[in-house]
Formats: sequence, C-alpha cells, structure tokens
Amino acid sequence: MAVNDDALLTEQMAYYRARAPEYDRVYAEREDLRELLTVVDDLPIAGDVLELACGTGQWTGALAARAHSVTAVDASPEVLGIARARTASADVRFERVDVFNWQPPRRYDTVFFAFWLSHVPPSRLSGFWNTVAAALAPHGRAVFIDEGPAAAAREDVAGEVRRLEDGSEYRIVKVFHDPEQLTGELTELGWSADIRTREEFFVGIAEPRSATFA
Amino acid sequence: MAVNDDALLTEQMAYYRARAPEYDRVYAEREDLRELLTVVDDLPIAGDVLELACGTGQWTGALAARAHSVTAVDASPEVLGIARARTASADVRFERVDVFNWQPPRRYDTVFFAFWLSHVPPSRLSGFWNTVAAALAPHGRAVFIDEGPAAAAREDVAGEVRRLEDGSEYRIVKVFHDPEQLTGELTELGWSADIRTREEFFVGIAEPRSATFA
Repeated sequence: MAVNDDALLTEQMAYYRARAPEYDRVYAEREDLRELLTVVDDLPIAGDVLELACGTGQWTGALAARAHSVTAVDASPEVLGIARARTASADVRFERVDVFNWQPPRRYDTVFFAFWLSHVPPSRLSGFWNTVAAALAPHGRAVFIDEGPAAAAREDVAGEVRRLEDGSEYRIVKVFHDPEQLTGELTELGWSADIRTREEFFVGIAEPRSATFA
Repeated sequence: MAVNDDALLTEQMAYYRARAPEYDRVYAEREDLRELLTVVDDLPIAGDVLELACGTGQWTGALAARAHSVTAVDASPEVLGIARARTASADVRFERVDVFNWQPPRRYDTVFFAFWLSHVPPSRLSGFWNTVAAALAPHGRAVFIDEGPAAAAREDVAGEVRRLEDGSEYRIVKVFHDPEQLTGELTELGWSADIRTREEFFVGIAEPRSATFA
C-alpha cells in the first residue's frame, strides 16, 4: 500500500506540474469557487500565515490582505511561477516545498490550505497533521477548505484519473472527507476541530488540543 | 485520446474482474443503494429485457420479477458466476459480452443498465447509445440509473483510481452526468429522454425519437 501511495503521489505531483497552464480554468468556469474565495474574510486568518499547496495563488492574495505576512509553498515550480506573477505583495514569499518531506523551519499563527486535504492519501494523513502542528505557534490555528462529503462513503476510491488538454492522463489522490468523520479523526490525532459544511464544500478550523491548556 | 480510452477500458475491465469477490460489499454497506433497488417497481420494465453490465446480478432479480425474460450481460465472467448463483429464475440467462464490441443479435422491449453509463468514456457515448438503439424493438425503451451530478462540473476528471482489498489499484472510467446536459446529448443523438434526479442518483427513460413516429 505504501508503495502504491508513493507512486500515486509522484504521479500527482507530475500532474500538477503539467497542469499549471490549465490550473486556473476551473476558477474561471466555476462561479461557486469564485464565490467561495470570499469565505476567507469570515475565517481566523491572522499574523504570519503559512499557505500549503498554494497552487497558482488563487487564495494567496485574499490571505495577504488579512495577514501580517504569507509564506506560500507548493511542490510545483510551474504553479509557483504563476502565483508569483499574480501576487503583487511585498508581504508574500513563495517557496518550493514537498509537504510530505518537509520540516517547517519556523512556526506560524495560521496554517491555511484550500483543496489540499482531499489530495493527502489516508496513509499520510496522520503525518501530514503532525507537520501542520509542527508549523503552528502556540494558539495558532489550522484553517482548511475542501470539497464536501458527497462521495465520502466510497472507501475504495483512492483517487481520480485527470486528463489534460493534450489528452495525457494522470492518477491523483482524491479522498472526499465527511466533516463529522474528519472531526473524529482529528480528535484522535490530538486536535480540537470545528468543521462546517458550506454548500458543496466544508470549512474547518483546528488547533492542537494541548494548545488549549497552554 | 482514443488510445487512452482503450487503455482505461482495458484496465476498467480488469478491475471489475478482480473486484468480483468484493463487488457486493457496497450494496451491503449502503442503505441508500438497497433502497434504490425498489425503484425498479416504478419503472417501465416490460417484455423481454436486456440488462447491460449486470455485474453480480444485484438488479437482475428485480427485473426478472417484472419481465417476460431477462438476458443479462457483462464483460466479466467472474461477476457472471456470482450473478448466476444469486439468480434462481428460469427466465434469466447470462451471457459474457463486451458491450463496446458487440452487435445485439436480437431486439428487446427494455434495455436496462444501472451504474453503467458513468463508466462509458465520453468518446464512446454516441456509439454506446447506437448499440442500445440497435437492441431495442419498436416502442422499446432504455431505462437507466446512475450516480447524480454532484461532480458533473469537472470535465477534467476522466476516471477514478479504485483500490481493492489487496492494495492493488486500477484506473477506471467515471464520468458523472448532469441530467439536464445528458438529456440534451441524447436529444442530439436522436433520442427522446426523460431523466429525473432521485436523491443522489438519477433515473432515466429514453426511446429513439424515430420510434415515436412508427
């Protein structure tokens, strides 16, 4: 299983590198996604923010408007190039990071990730949340957004086959989380989480439980 | 693209053969699917029925109860073996058929397929419906059920990665249809279609439009 997840993650990374030029189309076509971007204003984005899997920076500007600084990371240099061109703020820096093989060099007040959790294989979920915890300052919070639970019941779905304009196909990880079940998993991993459904998406806020006693 | 679809279809067929022993679990686990089986009683299932992609025969018995005869076909001998063992009716016969490479040898009053249309690649959709038309007697109708349009907006999703209990992974075709858009596509292909959403599923009834003038 671990071998399969490694292969899937490698192919997923290749997909998002190759998809960089087509990446923004889904935001251009889907009004619900553009509308969702405004949710940032209702979320506890504060202080120094780390954005994981920032992609082409669709969310980065909205984060920067509410943060002291933003460090936005992604595994794909291709999307980072687009994100840099899009984001004209001195308070934002971009870095190439493979979050599955990374130790955060400092701590942040907020760790934000949109449409990333569904791309984390279940076998890596616990390690991923440990990385998020290691990136959070005391009283820091993780804020995350993803697609809703419509397909969460299908445990045999390990991913999706995505097709680019040139017809090439890539396997990627795609795990749909049920908010209630995800809250339970986070509780077991030592987090206190509040995850709410918003139309076909969910929006979560979580902090390491030990922090509540700090 | 065609080459990719051929590869996907080959892998999809291998998946459903290998999945045969695990196939019924989703029906055991999902009450909504078991409840959905009762929809057959409200549908125009009549006369001699052809069931495409019958799988392990979850729907075959309910069809047989309302039909004069059922011919149930699937590409996988493994699921046909399970379907035969499950279905104790002299009015049902099972046949191994790859519907993408098949000319129906006779015509039927009803052609039924549940959870199959989403596994037909878009490049094969028109040919598939031609096969259905060629299998229908005058005034015969196609009756079909599938998963609803939750993910229909994502045109770059060409399939899913499915994982079996042993950890092996397969790419399969998985296209979510929007009922309204599918109705338009069928109209263009010469069909008259009535497709209704039922909870997270859709249920469609279609007949070749020329038949309405027969």
